[in-house]
Amino acid sequence: MKVIKVAASVLKVNDTIALENQAAFRDNNVFVVNVMGSPGAGKTSLLLRTIEALKDNIRIGVIEGDIATSHDAELIQATGVPVVQINTEGACHLDAMMIKMALTHFNLAEIDLLFIENVGNLVCPAGFRLGENARVVVSSVPEGDDKPKKYPGMFRIADGVVLNKIDLLHAFEFNINTFKEDVRRAGELPIFEVSCKTKDGLSVWLDWLGVKKK
Amino acid sequence: MKVIKVAASVLKVNDTIALENQAAFRDNNVFVVNVMGSPGAGKTSLLLRTIEALKDNIRIGVIEGDIATSHDAELIQATGVPVVQINTEGACHLDAMMIKMALTHFNLAEIDLLFIENVGNLVCPAGFRLGENARVVVSSVPEGDDKPKKYPGMFRIADGVVLNKIDLLHAFEFNINTFKEDVRRAGELPIFEVSCKTKDGLSVWLDWLGVKKK
Repeated sequence: MKVIKVAASVLKVNDTIALENQAAFRDNNVFVVNVMGSPGAGKTSLLLRTIEALKDNIRIGVIEGDIATSHDAELIQATGVPVVQINTEGACHLDAMMIKMALTHFNLAEIDLLFIENVGNLVCPAGFRLGENARVVVSSVPEGDDKPKKYPGMFRIADGVVLNKIDLLHAFEFNINTFKEDVRRAGELPIFEVSCKTKDGLSVWLDWLGVKKK
Repeated sequence: MKVIKVAASVLKVNDTIALENQAAFRDNNVFVVNVMGSPGAGKTSLLLRTIEALKDNIRIGVIEGDIATSHDAELIQATGVPVVQINTEGACHLDAMMIKMALTHFNLAEIDLLFIENVGNLVCPAGFRLGENARVVVSSVPEGDDKPKKYPGMFRIADGVVLNKIDLLHAFEFNINTFKEDVRRAGELPIFEVSCKTKDGLSVWLDWLGVKKK
């Protein structure tokens, strides 16, 4: 089918640029994490907590992807780390070219850890490599325990899963074992049960980041 | 740019088929609602509550769109209304051709109100007409009050917004006035504040559906 061929060729161009980004990151010794998840899962909150915990010891940078607004980027900027906002103006995911353009606004030699917060979307971002070292999916209790089952593509390509808002487990019919089993069906992934609100569970996530980075 | 042209031509094909679907609906006097929203916003719960309230008086049918699983369709089927599951196998939205194929499994003459539950995604489904009469966005309190601002495309094309999980307003920093103002910036849309869990606010939504259908 014609459409699929076009998609394949778009992906091929994307992958070529992703490799260029990857080389730039490697040359500058930057560890890059692509953070994905549904709208409202808590991607920005996770970054804020992570920056708060690590910024005194690690030089962090952030690329914020949003369809519109610079709301999240402003929250990140308030922490003092360098941030670049990409507004996709409708596009449902970040692609490698957008990252390549954003990189011109950073001095990579001065960054150890770069977070890329993707557009809130549990589907499309999974298809686009950005040149990152790790892909993390943020899921959250209010979304329901069936997300790994219903959006397998995203969980399949992930290197780690953050389950956020666990302080609300009592308020929802959320079976954490079902969630975990379905994630594990997608792969042998670490699952970090956290609450960015209460800070519960964040240390395990931060340790993992530290180990991956080495 | 080449990619954009391809997208435009895909959309043109989609619109042609959407018009065919629309004609089939009109000929059979079926009112069709395309229900969109983030993963876990409560689209299926809204349909279950709506079916429960209306099915004795109105002949309802449902098309369930999911990337994978038939979990939601099974929940709908248990209510006794006819349901067809579309598994998009990775695709991030329903398109008019998928609906056209699904329609071959319904007798439209025996349906008054058809719900199409789109893939959980606050971005892509907004770009694809299906032949529906009304487009409804389901948003939910745990997602945060900034969704209309950050995903304006979806709210701009909507005919109505359901804000679900209002029973959890106390548990989140959710400014309902901000949410409403930003929705209104997208258009003069009715906003239904509901809880599918406690059934709060559902009657206003049901009344609106009844009036639109006439």
